[in-house]
Amino acid sequence: MPKPYFPEFSNGWPALVEALKSKKVAVIGHIRPDGDCMGSQVGLTRILNQLSIETTAVNRDPYPREITEFVGDTPVALGEAALNRSFDVAITVDCSAMDRIGEELATKVNTVYACIDHHITNPLFAEVNWVPKDAAATAEVIAGIAFDNGISIDPITAQALYVGIATDTGQFRYAATTQRVFDICGQLMEHGANPNTAAQSLYERQKKGRVELLKAYLNTLQFYMDDQLCIGQLTPAMFEAAGSERTDAEGFVDYARNVETVKIACILEEQPDGSTKGSLRAKESRYRVDQLAGYFGGGGHTCAAGFGHPDSPESFLPIFIEKTREHLQLVEQS
Amino acid sequence: MPKPYFPEFSNGWPALVEALKSKKVAVIGHIRPDGDCMGSQVGLTRILNQLSIETTAVNRDPYPREITEFVGDTPVALGEAALNRSFDVAITVDCSAMDRIGEELATKVNTVYACIDHHITNPLFAEVNWVPKDAAATAEVIAGIAFDNGISIDPITAQALYVGIATDTGQFRYAATTQRVFDICGQLMEHGANPNTAAQSLYERQKKGRVELLKAYLNTLQFYMDDQLCIGQLTPAMFEAAGSERTDAEGFVDYARNVETVKIACILEEQPDGSTKGSLRAKESRYRVDQLAGYFGGGGHTCAAGFGHPDSPESFLPIFIEKTREHLQLVEQS
Repeated sequence: MPKPYFPEFSNGWPALVEALKSKKVAVIGHIRPDGDCMGSQVGLTRILNQLSIETTAVNRDPYPREITEFVGDTPVALGEAALNRSFDVAITVDCSAMDRIGEELATKVNTVYACIDHHITNPLFAEVNWVPKDAAATAEVIAGIAFDNGISIDPITAQALYVGIATDTGQFRYAATTQRVFDICGQLMEHGANPNTAAQSLYERQKKGRVELLKAYLNTLQFYMDDQLCIGQLTPAMFEAAGSERTDAEGFVDYARNVETVKIACILEEQPDGSTKGSLRAKESRYRVDQLAGYFGGGGHTCAAGFGHPDSPESFLPIFIEKTREHLQLVEQS
Repeated sequence: MPKPYFPEFSNGWPALVEALKSKKVAVIGHIRPDGDCMGSQVGLTRILNQLSIETTAVNRDPYPREITEFVGDTPVALGEAALNRSFDVAITVDCSAMDRIGEELATKVNTVYACIDHHITNPLFAEVNWVPKDAAATAEVIAGIAFDNGISIDPITAQALYVGIATDTGQFRYAATTQRVFDICGQLMEHGANPNTAAQSLYERQKKGRVELLKAYLNTLQFYMDDQLCIGQLTPAMFEAAGSERTDAEGFVDYARNVETVKIACILEEQPDGSTKGSLRAKESRYRVDQLAGYFGGGGHTCAAGFGHPDSPESFLPIFIEKTREHLQLVEQS
């Protein structure tokens, strides 16, 4: 495809670098960071340091086990260290809103100088906002702008940015996967990204307990409404019996969603206090699980949303089924 | 990356087309066709027809349900129809050896004019052999050679070739995923390939029975040698009880392979005649499951191989474990 990848934003790069000269910069990501958050933080932090701008990746939470190795020797301040870190300028990456950096950090940050993101709901809360809404990942935006400006990135930077793109596109399966995504990934490989070692770290280092948890989870799957709705359940007891942790259940909802007849898939997860956390997935955006989650005080994307409910999963289940039935009827009629 | 993608082979394309002029061509794939086989057959068949060479995709077996829709209006002769099809010239795609087209078709085919493939064990059995061993998929070879020769492909061709690449790289996770793979996929999107709709057909239309089969399969997983070897089993009875078919088990071996300690994963599948079919996966290419499969008369890639054995899985199991132990020891010592 013809470059530049991000003509709208890439020419602003020299001015951004100029504005950051001699400043201490924090590249802040969102709480409960995922692959794209980590990749964007690590990528931008390294690029700025390479340009002699003292920069640190700052996050209220540490990175999950399967992505932490991509950080390499990047300067980071995570968890407790994040709250003690001093800096002159804040840049947020992959944060759809200011409050996504977490309350604790938000009290330290008066203004955000630059916001680099790709969420359609982003209200553009910074002075400089680079939020191309057709981008599949924030890491795609950072990589594209770097390449547009002829910046030569090192292998750790390339791999971190690659991981951001690979995870946020669901390994190139989601609708936001464009030609630009593939072209940028090709160029990242030229700079040292390795899709195979990335995949090994991301997907092939599962705990044995995850298999046990999956077995227990699959046993809970129930189908309703002529198999249009599939509901699975998770409980603290299941995690304990399998010797596994919360992140081991990542992606479990897809076992329900991927059944051909299923329009809406859901995991009702019993919380330690007995309440219910609901995770919703829709096969197509017209099923609007953000609205369905909204009935219960939650929200999210059209195809992926969530909510919390004070009742136990057991007593909430019939309420949820009934509301989903109504919702699907409304959607089909419209 | 600099083009041409396949300099070694692409300049042979005009001569191939010349040799096929006015002939009836069969593009033959391997038995039990997968995504790369289908994509290569559909892709090459359409490209040749576009050049006014009467070509049909011929396969002893029909394509599995989840890939059949990518065929579109491509001329095909599958199953029974394949055996009755007459043609002047045979081209094989994605066949690592001549016998992969199946006995029934092999008796009809005296010589193979061209062999397009990417398996390292391919003995180059045709007159023209295009077998770049660093290619991730046969569809990558066909797409690359087409683009090198400036051929404009239609959206159905682009999507079929994309599906071949996406499936044979495990959604861009395997070691053969190179910059060329991403560049070619980007170019396929330019011609109408759609990764999202491909993924929907490939992964989100599973039968309910697949979940049942997965549960039964996960229950068979056994770990050996300090969890370095994981073996799962499948039997005709399991398929029947789950109301599912052979292709529903696609990818099951990865549940074993993805456990962090596992170096070699295997499914031993009981055949209807009581014999055993083994599917092997290695986490790293140095574990050479092609060699391990070779001990039992099979073969394949360094990380993915297979074999057949006359014994039942039950009596074969200890033999297999012992041989794998020896093999892993040899690998670790080398």
